[in-house]
Amino acid sequence: MKTIKVGMLGIGNVGSGTYLALEMNSASIEKSAGVHLEIAKILNRRPEAKRAVEVPPEKYTADPYEIINDPEIEIIIEVMGGIEPASTYMADALRAGKHVVTANKAALAVNGEMLQKLAMENHVMLRFEASVGGGIPIINAVADPLVSNQYDEVLGILNGTTNYILTHMTEEGADYADVLKKAQELGFAEPDPTADVEGIDAANKLSILLSLVFGARVLPKDIPTEGISRISGADIAAAKEQGCKIKLIARAAKTDKGLEYSVRPTLLPKEHPLAGVNNEFNAVFLKGNAVDELMFYGRGAGALPTASAVWGDLIEVGKEIAKGAAYDLVVAGGPAEA
Amino acid sequence: MKTIKVGMLGIGNVGSGTYLALEMNSASIEKSAGVHLEIAKILNRRPEAKRAVEVPPEKYTADPYEIINDPEIEIIIEVMGGIEPASTYMADALRAGKHVVTANKAALAVNGEMLQKLAMENHVMLRFEASVGGGIPIINAVADPLVSNQYDEVLGILNGTTNYILTHMTEEGADYADVLKKAQELGFAEPDPTADVEGIDAANKLSILLSLVFGARVLPKDIPTEGISRISGADIAAAKEQGCKIKLIARAAKTDKGLEYSVRPTLLPKEHPLAGVNNEFNAVFLKGNAVDELMFYGRGAGALPTASAVWGDLIEVGKEIAKGAAYDLVVAGGPAEA
Repeated sequence: MKTIKVGMLGIGNVGSGTYLALEMNSASIEKSAGVHLEIAKILNRRPEAKRAVEVPPEKYTADPYEIINDPEIEIIIEVMGGIEPASTYMADALRAGKHVVTANKAALAVNGEMLQKLAMENHVMLRFEASVGGGIPIINAVADPLVSNQYDEVLGILNGTTNYILTHMTEEGADYADVLKKAQELGFAEPDPTADVEGIDAANKLSILLSLVFGARVLPKDIPTEGISRISGADIAAAKEQGCKIKLIARAAKTDKGLEYSVRPTLLPKEHPLAGVNNEFNAVFLKGNAVDELMFYGRGAGALPTASAVWGDLIEVGKEIAKGAAYDLVVAGGPAEA
Repeated sequence: MKTIKVGMLGIGNVGSGTYLALEMNSASIEKSAGVHLEIAKILNRRPEAKRAVEVPPEKYTADPYEIINDPEIEIIIEVMGGIEPASTYMADALRAGKHVVTANKAALAVNGEMLQKLAMENHVMLRFEASVGGGIPIINAVADPLVSNQYDEVLGILNGTTNYILTHMTEEGADYADVLKKAQELGFAEPDPTADVEGIDAANKLSILLSLVFGARVLPKDIPTEGISRISGADIAAAKEQGCKIKLIARAAKTDKGLEYSVRPTLLPKEHPLAGVNNEFNAVFLKGNAVDELMFYGRGAGALPTASAVWGDLIEVGKEIAKGAAYDLVVAGGPAEA
């Protein structure tokens, strides 16, 4: 069986999960891909840090270009997070003829178009299932089995931290500040929760969905965005009286006035499928002109759920390499022209 | 742009939806497939019947072999339903070197292994996204983006008729016979509802999921199956008192004693994601060792939702024909070896 060498940029939460998932599922990965996928080199920018997995130290390098320019490496996994230097490394990897699999919503939301173009020009694949909804296979679903549909609307609960906070405010009648503190203690919220609670993370993901679902290129900064930090216990109680729940909803919809999009706290009738999505879970609700209503529900973050999506992409790339197919035709998730 | 001719066996509910969906979404279908897919010939066994779509009469034939043996036709859509003669026609189409896309759960549950083998031997694709969960892309999800996972459990609400009846019994405190009658009047239940209400339809679909998710070949007749016809209003009320709902659940799970599977009315705590799946909607809930909990929700039947899945498959086949790829490697949904 052919071995394909893979380089990984980053060994934090998602990187460790990706490494661990290969150990857990090597047999099913090999059988599905039809090739042996080996994580050969890993960029570790903090060699002193304790990692969640045991990696043979000779796999580590502190120099990203030792991976990007390695002629034996055919696929690069980017799991560093952040717009830079991740975008530059991905661009250089694509230019060097490497396929790229990434979980990086911030980099894709801003530089996705540039990266997609580089992938096409260099006849390689850029895949990013893990960038929206963690383990939920929403990117693949829209790009493949649902691709004949035209959409009226997409609604998402795309951030686990804010959904956890809103769920506990709703269930316990507690105030925002108290629940945030508890979420931070339990690891469901970052010490600096701004990107989550102010809706920035959700806007990055909505930008990616806008491109896929509506072929629209909208930068996160151009999406009207309001977070949950001003939601009070009284707001939640008032919603409940109306038979509703408050959820942080990323929405895009075709209307008479054109394409509308926003991230904002939204009243949902408690019968709506998204109203039952609680705690740190994410979900995406779509309405297509053939398939009608669909919802995908699962873990939007976490090491192993996100790794599941990374491995789905890696296996697809591995299969295509094994087939020697024309990559131009199979670059997944390329935005449709509007 | 290359034209690929497609033949369709059947022009009932799903066939009409498939024809209509092409008219609705021809631009996105063509753009996604990279080829022009033309439904060139249609088997119509009841030329006198009124159909939901207007088809030029010259496309109709009463002879299936005029389609199966047409050298210009490269893909056959099978939407006749029923085990025979559909299985024989699909087998003959595969032997004739045609790719086959089918929505036929009954035929696949019994003859899927034989048909898959024929597809491999003849280097063609057999795809069947529409056979389980209608428009819900569960087959594709398990075969592609989730393929690295090993599963503990899969639970499905796989039959819309029974879910509609149980929902209305729960919401209205009504009895089985009354709700069945209403469902028949509204078209949510067949005049002879046996296959639905006795769980036979759900068992067919579970047989397909068992093959995909666990690599297990279990015929529908070997799945312990109990329907909903003996559920009383009192059962539903008792469940409600325990904070539960009764749903007809198709379940497969790995246990210490091996693989367990059944279709039966099941008490679900009302917080379970499947408990909120109401009316004619279907859903599949999975637990994978990397992705953890996932749920897919949508319309499990209906002309257009099912057609969405048929077109997802047709586009994939169209792309592969355009690429001239090695089909052996891309036959989707082939059961994993246990």
